Amino acid sequence: MKSDIEITREVTLKPVSEIAERLGISKDLLEPYGHYKAKLPLSIIDKGKMKGKKLILVSAISPTPAGEGKTTISIGLSEGLNRIGKQTTVVLREPSLGPVFGIKGGATGGGHAQVVPMEDINLHFTGDFAAIEKANNLLAALIDNNIQNKNGSLGIDPRTVHWKRVMDMNDRALRHIIVGLGGTASGVPRETGFDITAASEIMAILCLAENFEDLKERIGRIFIGFTLDKKPVYARDLNAQGAMAALLKDAIKPNLVQTLEGNPAIIHGGPFANIAQGTNSVLATKMGLTLSDYVVTEAGFGFDLGAEKFLDIKCVSAGLQPDAAVLVATVRALKYHGGVSLSEINHPDAAAVERGLENLEKHVENMRKFNVCPVVAINHFADDTDAEINAIQLKCKELGVKAAVAKVHAMGGKGAEELAKIVSEVAETCSSELKPLYEWEWPVEKKIETIATKIYGAAAIDYTAQAKADLKKIYDLKLDKLPVCIAKTQKSLSDNPKLLGRPENFVVTVREIEIAAGAGFIVPITGNIMRMPGLPEKPAAEDIDISSDGIISGLF
Amino acid sequence: MKSDIEITREVTLKPVSEIAERLGISKDLLEPYGHYKAKLPLSIIDKGKMKGKKLILVSAISPTPAGEGKTTISIGLSEGLNRIGKQTTVVLREPSLGPVFGIKGGATGGGHAQVVPMEDINLHFTGDFAAIEKANNLLAALIDNNIQNKNGSLGIDPRTVHWKRVMDMNDRALRHIIVGLGGTASGVPRETGFDITAASEIMAILCLAENFEDLKERIGRIFIGFTLDKKPVYARDLNAQGAMAALLKDAIKPNLVQTLEGNPAIIHGGPFANIAQGTNSVLATKMGLTLSDYVVTEAGFGFDLGAEKFLDIKCVSAGLQPDAAVLVATVRALKYHGGVSLSEINHPDAAAVERGLENLEKHVENMRKFNVCPVVAINHFADDTDAEINAIQLKCKELGVKAAVAKVHAMGGKGAEELAKIVSEVAETCSSELKPLYEWEWPVEKKIETIATKIYGAAAIDYTAQAKADLKKIYDLKLDKLPVCIAKTQKSLSDNPKLLGRPENFVVTVREIEIAAGAGFIVPITGNIMRMPGLPEKPAAEDIDISSDGIISGLF
Repeated sequence: MKSDIEITREVTLKPVSEIAERLGISKDLLEPYGHYKAKLPLSIIDKGKMKGKKLILVSAISPTPAGEGKTTISIGLSEGLNRIGKQTTVVLREPSLGPVFGIKGGATGGGHAQVVPMEDINLHFTGDFAAIEKANNLLAALIDNNIQNKNGSLGIDPRTVHWKRVMDMNDRALRHIIVGLGGTASGVPRETGFDITAASEIMAILCLAENFEDLKERIGRIFIGFTLDKKPVYARDLNAQGAMAALLKDAIKPNLVQTLEGNPAIIHGGPFANIAQGTNSVLATKMGLTLSDYVVTEAGFGFDLGAEKFLDIKCVSAGLQPDAAVLVATVRALKYHGGVSLSEINHPDAAAVERGLENLEKHVENMRKFNVCPVVAINHFADDTDAEINAIQLKCKELGVKAAVAKVHAMGGKGAEELAKIVSEVAETCSSELKPLYEWEWPVEKKIETIATKIYGAAAIDYTAQAKADLKKIYDLKLDKLPVCIAKTQKSLSDNPKLLGRPENFVVTVREIEIAAGAGFIVPITGNIMRMPGLPEKPAAEDIDISSDGIISGLF
Repeated sequence: MKSDIEITREVTLKPVSEIAERLGISKDLLEPYGHYKAKLPLSIIDKGKMKGKKLILVSAISPTPAGEGKTTISIGLSEGLNRIGKQTTVVLREPSLGPVFGIKGGATGGGHAQVVPMEDINLHFTGDFAAIEKANNLLAALIDNNIQNKNGSLGIDPRTVHWKRVMDMNDRALRHIIVGLGGTASGVPRETGFDITAASEIMAILCLAENFEDLKERIGRIFIGFTLDKKPVYARDLNAQGAMAALLKDAIKPNLVQTLEGNPAIIHGGPFANIAQGTNSVLATKMGLTLSDYVVTEAGFGFDLGAEKFLDIKCVSAGLQPDAAVLVATVRALKYHGGVSLSEINHPDAAAVERGLENLEKHVENMRKFNVCPVVAINHFADDTDAEINAIQLKCKELGVKAAVAKVHAMGGKGAEELAKIVSEVAETCSSELKPLYEWEWPVEKKIETIATKIYGAAAIDYTAQAKADLKKIYDLKLDKLPVCIAKTQKSLSDNPKLLGRPENFVVTVREIEIAAGAGFIVPITGNIMRMPGLPEKPAAEDIDISSDGIISGLF
């Protein structure tokens, strides 16, 4: 079987100017980055042109190690929609560089459903992550510099600084560090650490910002810690927002590339799906809706995580609403939810699929709580049997949800034509208005409880002493009207990664609550959330190479 | 007076495709980054076309806080040469981002002698520094991952790892850190630190590499430390070179921009001038010589530092030789060398200039030791008096060196026409062949002694116990045939920053000797070399801003 990068090599890419032309973007507005990538200026976005356009949200059942292929389906569906005459742009988040050198390989789809040039998109792309990293780390340098220098000092208590540095690298040794050693000239010693760049609040801010003004405003609101006399300190107190926003002057512009079949793809922003909203930028979504009739976009992890945040935070904040929501499922993942171990996943077992379907059922119920119109996409793998597929289709019929098998990995857009037809029918007939799950105005506890009971299916919520102290801080700082962006394992509907399928009668424990005042949400943390991954024993980096004529190999 | 960025705003930039067209670069070879920047593929470089082309090296007297303006003169001279009919490209190093937020502002020339778009070049430019940072930090992550994981471990002794992480930020708190805290899952605790990205050995490697093969070879040769049983460990032992070179696939390509007068400028690579060769990449120089009749290039700090390394390391490594060498001096800097304090520097004082000229005299003598043909450029400031200028010109006459006053800050290329005429006369008549100061084959001590006595004017060399141990290690590792890249203060010809003018009878102390086996040199360190700058009490970042339509202000 050909590798993903080999498949992309067999396709002749169109110049990005040609892709732009098809979208009606005039040449002087396009900012090319090489021949196949370009940045799109924000001036293109036009609210008037967004009216009546269709926004399709792709999400999935609870992720398993067996794989669901959400990005692959998003790309394939977009090819399929274009094939059946719907002018469509797929709008995706940017891959994080760190995991490319670990186990994961790229994050640009797979097989015959990919966005290209895949090596560029997976490596530095147009420099957005690097710019976000610099803006994040400039604020860190300004904080430590303010602690170091007596004049102009804000009197920041070094023990309260929760702003961390970031690096787009899987580097576990940076999780917990001590900085400022080496004597008086080299800073004040304190404990801190690095997160991966995707986990930076700056990334979340960039993805929610509507323009430069809003970007600066949000950056200025970042909460850093307290002074020695316990007053809150924000980024604006360091006059950091102007320089930080200047560093983001190009990163804020969405990027245009293409799919393997030469259709437009906008890829922009990549917030950590677990502690942030986990989807591409608001500006990219709006750019897509300005330029084409259909936009297919993806929310990270299962519907309970990425999609919930997409609907309750991003859609409310940006005034968006999806016209259909696609739930991706695979026979393999359903068998895993049905109790089959990973090593047995290729054996036909329709009964296990049936057992696993309770997970799908819960996600479909959840979709309806938001009033969005659901479609199920069965991402087809070669080993799937008819009996297994039938079990899914039967359940969907029972639930009153349209479903289609999509063979996008093997066939590209041709394998998604049926799915595309169903999705467009649903999108064009669905008239219901998005109903967010909660009001931002509600008390924090009520917001958390609503999500945990209604979406996760929890019986009760427990707060640790730390979480209770954090709650008090949030009320004291008057940040309680912000939406909540719950950090939870993606592996289970509950906060316990081991509970597959549809867990019930469980208690969700909120361990602590973080403040992302700049991004505009608070982050109740349940379970252990790793924000700086490590490399595996044999890193993928060892197999990546470049030839004497600059051709990269070893990327998946 | 208008700020640098305001001056650039008054000029209408030409599309980079137009600049490329003038250089004979076909459209399909140009890789645009926006409308005014582009990358040039290495395939353009053509040894045949380099023959007979003129390479002009710009260096300076020993730097002072009064300012010399080497980059400004390099750009202005290139404009002047184009004005007098010599088809010229200025080839420069890329600015480092970190200092932009500190005191320094930009590093793209000044007044009417600038390269543009200055805000892009000073901020992320085309992402080269970010790519170098990632390649450097991938190696660091692979090292700590190897120490962490038992299987496949090389048995690296964590106490011997001298490879540091880098960040392009003035962040003193990262100089000395402890990583790997937080328990068994988060690495093995050890002392390390961050350097600024320009100080990365990867930057030095990129600037000396001739192609992808050479790049990978050099990366593979990076010396990391020792195993617990005292065997040397290199980057190739971690299979790091392929992935690291893949990260540099675009960074290795030189960048094309323009001067304020619309002439071509190639800007590429930015090694720390003090512990590396301090000039733009070999590939950029060769690209310039392929594409135009004259190349003006600049070496960091005074002639004793950047230019010595340019001639003994870069020229020897890459088979280059300059046809003329310009020594930049200012009345102000010479007064400073003559004992005038910074606060008095604007008062006319021809006698002080005369006293300071001993510094210029020594640099001219040094230039002749390399057999290069010298020219003195007097970078004119508004306060300079005729008497002061005359003093310099008289001294130059005495030394038999042609000199010209250049008013490039105020007048751009028009202010450099006389200088351009002299430089082109010298370049076209200078027939002497470059004579490197030493043979790479010599013993390390002899190489160090030759530079210190002949160029710095030292009476003797002293080695600390550490330096002696390092010497032994270098001989043991058979790295003694590498050239030496001495790290020394730029403020004095000696290793004592307080000794201005032309110090004599001093002893140079080699404190330690570092190995840069990948870059292909060893680094004897004299004095304290800061590789991670800090921010000042009032960082420049506080005044940098971006308007609602994306226009940056506050960059100098």
